[in-house]
Amino acid sequence: MDDRIHEHAEILVDWSAQVEAGDDVVVAVGEGAHELGVAVAEALGDRGANMLPTYYSDEMDRAYRRAHDGSFETDPAFELAMLEHTDSVLLLRGTRNTTEFADVPDETHQAYAQAREGIREARLATDWVSTVHPTRAMAQQAGMSYQAYTDFVYDAILRDWESLAEEMAQLKTILDEGSEVRIVKENDRTDLTLSIANRTAVNSAASVAYDSHNLPSGEVFTAPADTAGQVVFDVPMTIRGTRVEDARLVFKDDVVVDWEAAAGEDVLTTIIETDGGSQRLGELGVGMNRGIDRITDQILFDEKMGGTIHMALGRAYDACLPEGEAGNDSAVHVDLITDMRTEGTRLEVDGKVIQRNGYFRWEDEFEG
Amino acid sequence: MDDRIHEHAEILVDWSAQVEAGDDVVVAVGEGAHELGVAVAEALGDRGANMLPTYYSDEMDRAYRRAHDGSFETDPAFELAMLEHTDSVLLLRGTRNTTEFADVPDETHQAYAQAREGIREARLATDWVSTVHPTRAMAQQAGMSYQAYTDFVYDAILRDWESLAEEMAQLKTILDEGSEVRIVKENDRTDLTLSIANRTAVNSAASVAYDSHNLPSGEVFTAPADTAGQVVFDVPMTIRGTRVEDARLVFKDDVVVDWEAAAGEDVLTTIIETDGGSQRLGELGVGMNRGIDRITDQILFDEKMGGTIHMALGRAYDACLPEGEAGNDSAVHVDLITDMRTEGTRLEVDGKVIQRNGYFRWEDEFEG
Repeated sequence: MDDRIHEHAEILVDWSAQVEAGDDVVVAVGEGAHELGVAVAEALGDRGANMLPTYYSDEMDRAYRRAHDGSFETDPAFELAMLEHTDSVLLLRGTRNTTEFADVPDETHQAYAQAREGIREARLATDWVSTVHPTRAMAQQAGMSYQAYTDFVYDAILRDWESLAEEMAQLKTILDEGSEVRIVKENDRTDLTLSIANRTAVNSAASVAYDSHNLPSGEVFTAPADTAGQVVFDVPMTIRGTRVEDARLVFKDDVVVDWEAAAGEDVLTTIIETDGGSQRLGELGVGMNRGIDRITDQILFDEKMGGTIHMALGRAYDACLPEGEAGNDSAVHVDLITDMRTEGTRLEVDGKVIQRNGYFRWEDEFEG
Repeated sequence: MDDRIHEHAEILVDWSAQVEAGDDVVVAVGEGAHELGVAVAEALGDRGANMLPTYYSDEMDRAYRRAHDGSFETDPAFELAMLEHTDSVLLLRGTRNTTEFADVPDETHQAYAQAREGIREARLATDWVSTVHPTRAMAQQAGMSYQAYTDFVYDAILRDWESLAEEMAQLKTILDEGSEVRIVKENDRTDLTLSIANRTAVNSAASVAYDSHNLPSGEVFTAPADTAGQVVFDVPMTIRGTRVEDARLVFKDDVVVDWEAAAGEDVLTTIIETDGGSQRLGELGVGMNRGIDRITDQILFDEKMGGTIHMALGRAYDACLPEGEAGNDSAVHVDLITDMRTEGTRLEVDGKVIQRNGYFRWEDEFEG
């Protein structure tokens, strides 16, 4: 077995889920994640935790949902009981076919999800962590060879997370104390200002200790307001099955007033016109994972890439808002990414340059 | 997918586990049983049952147990909670390596099993069924090609179980009403008498409705007493890793007083000398599954073969005994098989020939 699988398992168990002796740990093993499952089992045994492996099978899920008449039972008792007694849930994603659900009707998925809101809440109440074991299907989706994709995934996951968490803490402090963010990219006429006054940034360091539940992670995000100006999202991505390229959004008084895209403008329009909240930004995120050095059209990785900034149209995260204050609400949360690693880019907070040409002020490469 | 996998899933769900709409069903999917898992998922969805797939992985189990210090927690709460809320547990065995546990110490297995007695009891309290999905590893253990082994497994499983249950009911009635069984095989000087007075036979028809929890099944068994005479077990089998051939046992006053074997006599001696109960028979079983037509050295199949009779040294099953009466007790229960499909064999109950040369009196081939 690739040594990196063992390293991955240990980071997942110790850093991300903070598993301790005696903990009850559900390990949801994806169809293509068997090897990671074995490594996680070894780590859990070594730590003296209790293990219950579940099988996270796309093909079983598809067969079940298609065969069912659609009136799914609300929160089946046995699964709820398991989750309510569990300390942690480790989701080992590893799909063997990223389009396995292509022939399950959307209504079926919606009915299934609606019937299982209590199950979902019970899982979210645990120390859950979602991670990825590289598969050929995911390499294919990324347009990469399996070997190159595997290297890519481990570069993203096998970080010195403690050190990265400390670096990200610096940015969190700046954002927490700051009032206004300005993003400038001279090459594409991006110049956007966003208010972050009274908002709290989240240091997403891939650990439940940071209320961060994805491995890899590596971003600092907050909830902006009063957005004004224009921004070009030059990182191409697939949204709802459609390629979107060079989306340009113009904001006035916090609302998108004009937009265009070199590709996928229709899907962009559909998203923006979903509801009132989808015309505003719910998230401003700064990617800080330097292990991610290329775009793979998988949002979990792309948005964490060091030197990128992403913004989401739609719903804001409660963690960023003052106690009791409701943030931007919407049925959607769609991330868009802009690459700051070009000449003439700046991320400023209250007029001070925090990042220039993709490098933070505390990095050696930063030109002050 | 092989149509037989779907037929297998439907027999398992409908006949064996008697699953109904709204039932909570844990599906434990072996590493090599994925395809059966998918077919079972489809059947459960169609019946409107709730499904929770668990991953029944030898490699994860091995890694976990080896890495653990051996002081396993007693009945972890999350697994117990799941099982206590479950209607059925379907165990889809499908090992990819029958020797996966070769490097886990026996003490570890024992400690693990001891710590999980409550888990085991909770599972046994459900409508559980254990079945087998054919794998290359199991074909190899049987000394067969994968294709031939697959055909063999489905011949054993895809029976008309309702009809077989009715046929087996005839034998159960005969055994329940009878007092003495005599087994004669002229070719090897087998001539054994066993008392079955006041004992209740079990019609093991591969359905929870018959308190029968294995698919395939197909045997009628009871608990004998006062065994006398001699019997040769001419079906070779591997017991504790040792080949045992032509074991000849001589009984007097219910106890083995003499024994020999053409191969494996040492392991036979070890078993017989385990304790007081291991010198007596705890089970007399009659194989009635005509879909099983060859010996594969897998006791689950071998003992069910139509035209064979098996007897177990050691522990008796409570279901065969009068309420409150304790049967033969022992730490062991080791089945041995004799083939009745030869000239000059008879199974008699109270002097009446029930089976001759391997055929029952209600079969066309029976020569009265």
